[in-house]
Amino acid sequence: MQLLKTTDTDFSTAFQALVNNRREATVDVSGTVRGILADVKVRGDAAVKEYTSRFDHFSPESLHLSADFIATQAAKCPGDVKAALELAAERISRFHQKQLPQDIGYTDATGVKLGLNWVSLSQVGIYVPGGRASYPSSVLMNALPAKIAGVERIVMTVPIPRGEINPAVLAAAQVAGVTEIYSIGGAQAVAALAYGTETIKPVDKVVGPGNAYVAEAKRQVFGTVGIDSIAGPSEILVVADDKNNPEWIAWDLLSQAEHDPSAQSILITDSEIFAQQVITAVELVLTKLSTQAVASASWQNHGAVIVVSDLAESIPLLNQLAPEHVELCVDNPQLLASQIKCAGSLFLGRYTPEAIGDYLGGPNHVLPTSRSARFASGLSVYDFLKRITYLECNQAALQEIGKAAVTLAEAEGLPAHAGSVALRLQSKV
Amino acid sequence: MQLLKTTDTDFSTAFQALVNNRREATVDVSGTVRGILADVKVRGDAAVKEYTSRFDHFSPESLHLSADFIATQAAKCPGDVKAALELAAERISRFHQKQLPQDIGYTDATGVKLGLNWVSLSQVGIYVPGGRASYPSSVLMNALPAKIAGVERIVMTVPIPRGEINPAVLAAAQVAGVTEIYSIGGAQAVAALAYGTETIKPVDKVVGPGNAYVAEAKRQVFGTVGIDSIAGPSEILVVADDKNNPEWIAWDLLSQAEHDPSAQSILITDSEIFAQQVITAVELVLTKLSTQAVASASWQNHGAVIVVSDLAESIPLLNQLAPEHVELCVDNPQLLASQIKCAGSLFLGRYTPEAIGDYLGGPNHVLPTSRSARFASGLSVYDFLKRITYLECNQAALQEIGKAAVTLAEAEGLPAHAGSVALRLQSKV
Repeated sequence: MQLLKTTDTDFSTAFQALVNNRREATVDVSGTVRGILADVKVRGDAAVKEYTSRFDHFSPESLHLSADFIATQAAKCPGDVKAALELAAERISRFHQKQLPQDIGYTDATGVKLGLNWVSLSQVGIYVPGGRASYPSSVLMNALPAKIAGVERIVMTVPIPRGEINPAVLAAAQVAGVTEIYSIGGAQAVAALAYGTETIKPVDKVVGPGNAYVAEAKRQVFGTVGIDSIAGPSEILVVADDKNNPEWIAWDLLSQAEHDPSAQSILITDSEIFAQQVITAVELVLTKLSTQAVASASWQNHGAVIVVSDLAESIPLLNQLAPEHVELCVDNPQLLASQIKCAGSLFLGRYTPEAIGDYLGGPNHVLPTSRSARFASGLSVYDFLKRITYLECNQAALQEIGKAAVTLAEAEGLPAHAGSVALRLQSKV
Repeated sequence: MQLLKTTDTDFSTAFQALVNNRREATVDVSGTVRGILADVKVRGDAAVKEYTSRFDHFSPESLHLSADFIATQAAKCPGDVKAALELAAERISRFHQKQLPQDIGYTDATGVKLGLNWVSLSQVGIYVPGGRASYPSSVLMNALPAKIAGVERIVMTVPIPRGEINPAVLAAAQVAGVTEIYSIGGAQAVAALAYGTETIKPVDKVVGPGNAYVAEAKRQVFGTVGIDSIAGPSEILVVADDKNNPEWIAWDLLSQAEHDPSAQSILITDSEIFAQQVITAVELVLTKLSTQAVASASWQNHGAVIVVSDLAESIPLLNQLAPEHVELCVDNPQLLASQIKCAGSLFLGRYTPEAIGDYLGGPNHVLPTSRSARFASGLSVYDFLKRITYLECNQAALQEIGKAAVTLAEAEGLPAHAGSVALRLQSKV
């Protein structure tokens, strides 16, 4: 953990180093992944089963989970967890339904009809991690926007290492209405979704979080299918004045640190005393966590506390860091929020811990990391929709605007472009 | 060119081969590009100048085009071309302005405030090809949506091979209001935009068409910056009945064929006689084109004519091909259009040649190729906007939904997530 003050003479240098620290895995898995993808493309199910047996120590007869298996496993999910998933699904659905966009269509003064229709993707694959990092909340966050967008076929893959599955993951699939599920993971699952196998029909887009192999596989199949963004380690930036409870802020910082040793938690405050109180509280809270090893590694190596003279100074710093999650633990958080240009999602006020958004606030928890909030957004209904534009000229409209198109086509040296318009200006069908 | 009939016994096999033919360049430029990117990242301007001198045979003192140079060159653009660019800009702007989306915001029954704000990207780079394939229309199609989205800094790069530039390209930049222009191209331009140099401040997203090196460079910098889609060779699919003028349809098919030997033009018709008329017309038109060599190669190697029994059969074929451009040269084109799920842009009726959309119909001409219309859309205002979501709980709202979040965090084995919520349920700030 490093403590920076904007009044330090070397602040600018230290802050730039913080901004530029990419916190990425250094192992290059691209060759391994390329091999797996090529193998699955050629050998299909046989290859997928081999990798599943080798990496997950699981060798089912069929990769497809039967309705019976899903029902039996999901029934093991505790009642309070099931109820919480249902509340989460309801709140997430309501928020994402409001994203459904309107088609555009009009006839202009020249008589040209033109517009844009939103059309849902036909089939998408949702990658769900298995084992320790198997999160039922991610099933909801990925599947519900697709469902709301109108995607007809939603395919889920989830590895079942050593035959073990978290019942809550299948309960979440039930809640989200996902029924086509395969017990596979890793690069081989991404390959199966992108290329198809004898058992698994290919999809048009693959979304969902995963480890380094999954991320690299998604990068490599991009183009064959669409992908959502490639997720990096989680990040939180908390802007807090000294009227906060330091212990609350410590828990908030650690809620992202506990995800990954490469995660990053940053506090910006205008009080050096408060900064020290939070640092002390973090050390205390760490001792209480079952996730202490991960959270501690993240905090020691990537944590930062920045003391500013005035909280207004936090805005340009924040916009440069472009963090995944931002908490504004201040009075009138909207005042600061309105100046934020680069962030995944905002959590406003003293009673909105980031974790509430991870589960059931309503907005999506799949968010841009590694400064990609400069140009990218969280997962949404838009990720499962396409826009098809259209144009319709009648003869009179083409007479009015066609000549200019011919002029431009000729200026670009494209005679067939020019001719296709010019002919229609000279004669009738 | 191949002629297929849906009544042929081997139609299904032949059609699948057509669908799966990727028409891609076979030369792997990834190593070369990786080297250029790494070099520009380390040596900045010096590297960019060296590559510009080597590849473009151009060695300017400054990479930055002065306002004087731009004005002098743009003034050489013929008046009718300038006027056509202005008409195009007006029509493109009007269409893209209608895309500007509404923010979402509401307070739900529990008192939680939540929403989503659209925010424009701060700075983007537009890659414009130079030399033969330098298209002023692409300047408008890339720059205007960015301008309308509210992007503050729009940077344009355009190579000036041997000091030669198409005045219409700079006139288009003037019309679009782009003033920061650098005389560079290739992978080195993409690197300069993504990483920055002494002269060029980095941007957050790079858009625009380019050759194989540019496409690969965009693929490699993805993540450091955002990119639009990676463009492949152009495509057109024309659905036409026998009430069309075969010559018109021939020009339409060749308008895409003349872009690139790897371009693809496909006709689907319900009349074998009409199909033969068009094939004959194509051969005739080819002899009239200055772009004959390119158009002929494309038509011979990748052209296809598909005869169906009924035009309704065209829809499933079309949705599988997912072409960039679709012309529906039929009566009541809306009837077929409403069933199209996978296409970049539609051109409806007998008086809407695709070329009108390339220049000034209104919709964007940067469109998904290589079947990516299954999951992707044309360039739009949305490509230059981000969504930032937000959530604000008061103490009472957190009391109502917080317990379920704690339950889910515990089910996922994330104690700091659970604790950050649980603490706030137990006490006040």
